[in-house]
Amino acid sequence: MQTLVIVAHPEYEDSSTQAFLNRAQADLDTVTWHRLTDNNEPLAVASEQQRLLQADRIIFQFPMYWYSAPALLKQWEDDVLTRAFTFASERGKLVDKQLGIVTSLGYPEQEFQAGGTEGFSISEVLTPYRALAHHAGMQFLKPLVINQFAYLTDAEQAQLLIEYQQYLTASQPLHFQQRVKWMIKQLQKWQVSQPQAQQQRIQLIIDQLQEQQEHLDDLKEQIKLIRQAEEG
Amino acid sequence: MQTLVIVAHPEYEDSSTQAFLNRAQADLDTVTWHRLTDNNEPLAVASEQQRLLQADRIIFQFPMYWYSAPALLKQWEDDVLTRAFTFASERGKLVDKQLGIVTSLGYPEQEFQAGGTEGFSISEVLTPYRALAHHAGMQFLKPLVINQFAYLTDAEQAQLLIEYQQYLTASQPLHFQQRVKWMIKQLQKWQVSQPQAQQQRIQLIIDQLQEQQEHLDDLKEQIKLIRQAEEG
Repeated sequence: MQTLVIVAHPEYEDSSTQAFLNRAQADLDTVTWHRLTDNNEPLAVASEQQRLLQADRIIFQFPMYWYSAPALLKQWEDDVLTRAFTFASERGKLVDKQLGIVTSLGYPEQEFQAGGTEGFSISEVLTPYRALAHHAGMQFLKPLVINQFAYLTDAEQAQLLIEYQQYLTASQPLHFQQRVKWMIKQLQKWQVSQPQAQQQRIQLIIDQLQEQQEHLDDLKEQIKLIRQAEEG
Repeated sequence: MQTLVIVAHPEYEDSSTQAFLNRAQADLDTVTWHRLTDNNEPLAVASEQQRLLQADRIIFQFPMYWYSAPALLKQWEDDVLTRAFTFASERGKLVDKQLGIVTSLGYPEQEFQAGGTEGFSISEVLTPYRALAHHAGMQFLKPLVINQFAYLTDAEQAQLLIEYQQYLTASQPLHFQQRVKWMIKQLQKWQVSQPQAQQQRIQLIIDQLQEQQEHLDDLKEQIKLIRQAEEG
């Protein structure tokens, strides 16, 4: 699965969030990082569309400005997502691809609700993107919301790194079991490039995760048998 | 009451809708028509903000592109609506002003609903503007939606002209009684500039409207008395 991350940040160079996310995806070989820039030149529509064609998952990544993406991404939408290319009803080319949103908030996520200072939920304010996915016949993924990056602790940043990598590369929606499998796969990839002693330590973690997973699978099987007995 | 209409249409010169709306407001002396243009120059933020300060009602007028305004208006929002100027929580300058939306659709309005080809309602897709109004302490007016202008009959166009003029100048929300009052006021203004014979005809219409209004008021009063009698 190929993922295209379309990054729209008018002050990209000054954004610690974007720098962090860029580092987080640097080693993922199925991910293409595509930064939009505002150079006052018309967009190269054909090559932008070509990029989209090659991706299975398309991510709009932006800081939230006035409850949507910066104008930079809107201009891209207005120019690149032409009718013939996009409308599912007219054999559009995006049908069955996935659309994800990675957005960073300057204000606390818990204020995005009725009665909060923002008044509307993230789901509600992102409706135009949900409608776009709907019109293009795309699967809309649950957005990854980055809540005030500057205030995250080191542990929260580590957590975000994993969540972000999963958002770009793991199958979605991501259930617990798939999350573990994804984690094992990443560890196995990483293991190869490490020195011998480190490889063994990583192997221990992998074994531990696998054992836990098998234990969980056992428990699930037992619950299933109990239920069948009850019903029978 | 002063109204500022902020017009954002990337192909303004070719838009018959915008030409029609421009003619419809030309005689209204409390309305300022402010067209945004994309000349690749930075926006003059201070003078844009000055315009907003002078208005009681601010209208965003645009064709709907991908479920929101064209990038032209988003850039204006991103640049002009600075934190100190806009946030109600920080003594923003837009508190108690009104925000209205005039948007034209290329697709039938009745498709904007769950199960329709658009999947989401106009109210839902306009959430970012409702959230903006909320954050700025502004009153959000019920949007004026122009449904496929090219297909309107002459009678529908005449109806739209009145609705548009009312949207810009009448008190909102517009109840039936206020609608009649607004109509009488417009007729009286118009009357003055007409030849004698025409003036008399207009007076007849005004008298008729006033008489109907009084009759309606009478009926309402009677209903009120009946209800009071029932309750007593």
